[in-house]
Amino acid sequence: MGEHSFVLQGNICYSETKDRLSITDRGYLVCERGISRGVFRELPEAFQALPVADYGELLIIPGLVDLHLHGPQYTFRGLGMDLELLEWLDTYTFPEESRYRDLEYARTAYQRFAKDLKMSATTRAVIFGTVHGEATESLMDALESTGLRTFVGKVSMDQNCSDSLREESSGAALEAVLSWLKAAEGRYARTKPILTPRFAPTCSESLLAGLGRLQQETGLPVQSHLSENLSEISWVKELFPWSSCYGDVYQHFGLFGGEAKTVMAHCVHSTDLEIDMMKEAGVYIAHCPQSNMNLSSGIAPVRSYLEKGLSVGLGTDVAGGANLSMFRSMADAVNVSKLYWRLVDQRKRPLTMEEVFYLATRGGGAFFGPVGSFEEGFELDALVLDDEAITGVGSFSTRERLERYMYLADEGRLAAKYVAGLPIAIHKPAAVPAQPACAG
Amino acid sequence: MGEHSFVLQGNICYSETKDRLSITDRGYLVCERGISRGVFRELPEAFQALPVADYGELLIIPGLVDLHLHGPQYTFRGLGMDLELLEWLDTYTFPEESRYRDLEYARTAYQRFAKDLKMSATTRAVIFGTVHGEATESLMDALESTGLRTFVGKVSMDQNCSDSLREESSGAALEAVLSWLKAAEGRYARTKPILTPRFAPTCSESLLAGLGRLQQETGLPVQSHLSENLSEISWVKELFPWSSCYGDVYQHFGLFGGEAKTVMAHCVHSTDLEIDMMKEAGVYIAHCPQSNMNLSSGIAPVRSYLEKGLSVGLGTDVAGGANLSMFRSMADAVNVSKLYWRLVDQRKRPLTMEEVFYLATRGGGAFFGPVGSFEEGFELDALVLDDEAITGVGSFSTRERLERYMYLADEGRLAAKYVAGLPIAIHKPAAVPAQPACAG
Repeated sequence: MGEHSFVLQGNICYSETKDRLSITDRGYLVCERGISRGVFRELPEAFQALPVADYGELLIIPGLVDLHLHGPQYTFRGLGMDLELLEWLDTYTFPEESRYRDLEYARTAYQRFAKDLKMSATTRAVIFGTVHGEATESLMDALESTGLRTFVGKVSMDQNCSDSLREESSGAALEAVLSWLKAAEGRYARTKPILTPRFAPTCSESLLAGLGRLQQETGLPVQSHLSENLSEISWVKELFPWSSCYGDVYQHFGLFGGEAKTVMAHCVHSTDLEIDMMKEAGVYIAHCPQSNMNLSSGIAPVRSYLEKGLSVGLGTDVAGGANLSMFRSMADAVNVSKLYWRLVDQRKRPLTMEEVFYLATRGGGAFFGPVGSFEEGFELDALVLDDEAITGVGSFSTRERLERYMYLADEGRLAAKYVAGLPIAIHKPAAVPAQPACAG
Repeated sequence: MGEHSFVLQGNICYSETKDRLSITDRGYLVCERGISRGVFRELPEAFQALPVADYGELLIIPGLVDLHLHGPQYTFRGLGMDLELLEWLDTYTFPEESRYRDLEYARTAYQRFAKDLKMSATTRAVIFGTVHGEATESLMDALESTGLRTFVGKVSMDQNCSDSLREESSGAALEAVLSWLKAAEGRYARTKPILTPRFAPTCSESLLAGLGRLQQETGLPVQSHLSENLSEISWVKELFPWSSCYGDVYQHFGLFGGEAKTVMAHCVHSTDLEIDMMKEAGVYIAHCPQSNMNLSSGIAPVRSYLEKGLSVGLGTDVAGGANLSMFRSMADAVNVSKLYWRLVDQRKRPLTMEEVFYLATRGGGAFFGPVGSFEEGFELDALVLDDEAITGVGSFSTRERLERYMYLADEGRLAAKYVAGLPIAIHKPAAVPAQPACAG
């Protein structure tokens, strides 16, 4: 039946809609050449020749999609959490990213990042590199070998950042993107380039215009940051006084949806105009709740985005977020939505478990095509979750087990992981605790 | 030099004040008969005969104190997180707590809870049981065998709860407390009883009055809940129309500080009057940030409590909080304080890492006496933290390593744990991943 064709048996959950889970206990999930043929209570005769991996009562769910994180920031996650965005960038982020000029450092750091991402519950991710082309290739090399599917961007920035990172001119910055794209061409099956203006303040109009032309020529997707922090938004207004809103800066240069598939991180303080523009242009929003707490940014109005029918997924935003875990991102998204309801607007009811599960699977998955569901025709990304250590003495329904796994994932165990049908080798060697040296 | 006398060597951190850490790299922490003799850069001659456990560059910090959690709710942590407090109690909590009438169930569940608490970073805890006396003894039995030091309370409630849990009368409820105290007397070295009116709404005035008299006779400490949720607060006002605030109900019956050492969980919506009463009476506040998110309660104004000099510690409030981890509680406390600053009151700057570390060690530790510091004379509770898996390619100061451990504790490893000088056996057997059965 071809490569990556098999059947997984277990307690299978996926989102049918934003509000409804499909749950099939002891069901069969059929994968043919990396594509789902659907979930069945009884295995249809047509698929009975396929090998069956029987995971007993374990949970089987779609892979989780991290719509926004920074590969080079993985090294210092959990640091500098007493600062807001702009100070945090100057104090921690830019100095660390400067180190990636050293290709040896970049290789070592990115291999570690890629290994940990491979071991995590994330199957797809949209990732920032640094301004350095060769280092970004080494990030792509490291990710390609994991089997995960990713978009990776060499960052573009030619103003308002530390000297050690600033590209010399918009021309040089555009040349650097072209060189990087050329070097990467044809080398990767699973790792795709994405245009990456860091954020409006660090990009000259000439650079943004050049990236917009490049987008038109290449059809490449786009990622950036949008309306994360109040000081940042004021700064954008100063730098681009002609803009009607922060998003309008990207829009003006053809880097905001439409023909250009685009994901914008944060959108904590988007104006009504900006929200309408995102809806109109089909811009994806990467909601990063933990980062928005850590950097004191606020809480994005995700309930409103869902009511308006915008495309929303979740991101960890490592290292604005400290944790790679997309389960944690789901739990954080529920929690901050409750505080939004309690403290900001009682008309916006909190997000449910079903909704954040949707965001982490289908919501973000759509950026990659038919991804994030087990319905027929979707690319088959799957996680097998062992929650035995969480269950304890209790007895729970499959839905309850899924809710508990979201909150307690660090006590659970990822038993298996598949990306587009490819099994990912995630088992670590068993740890042996070290003993102290004793004397006296 | 007697039992529990030894020296720990490593990178030693503890709170000198709310705002300042003491850090001694490769220092010596001296323990004599369970009591700290202080931290030294060079080991004084007087202690050179003691055995030295050299933990290299590992972090050594005081044990963490969980000022508020519910033993019987551990079984269903992470469930029902779409409800507010009063519905959550009726839907999940009361039905589960009813099961502890069955002593066999209670023993099994409590042994699991105690084992997991033992393996955690918590060294001391203040714990709710259920209304059942014998079951609460089994909780105390299980905790005593862990080596941790705890206060444990048989819950008292005689109104406004499910029939299966309600004690028949205030007289019967008081009799039940006396029987439990008598049965527990002299049986435990590390596990102490604490009077535990569940919360004002479930206690008749006659029951509260009786518990107040019992407190005076026995000198026992008191734990309860206070001003967690807006509906709860309105209900208290209806039930006790004479009260000037929620805390006044406890105060009126002698269950609110003063001679009665008291810890009140939550205090999210305390009025100025209530805050003044807590300050005056020396009531401890157990701040439970994750629970206050999960149950949509809000954010407690901890910055104000610290400014006013109130006694504050941290609690996980399992199962309002899903996680036993006190590191998570510290990180959550920082995060919600940032949202409080951003969304509620910009005069209240966010809590720092130093401050939440203080709350989790000395702040809560004071409820147990001289606990939570390595200064001379403190009971020696210590954790040895192995952050090698977190460090990766970076190089960090001891303070930075501590900050990162707070956010990334689930990737770290607790290498050793001591409570009042007693080493706790925390090493789990190495896990062997299960393989799926394959066929076809």
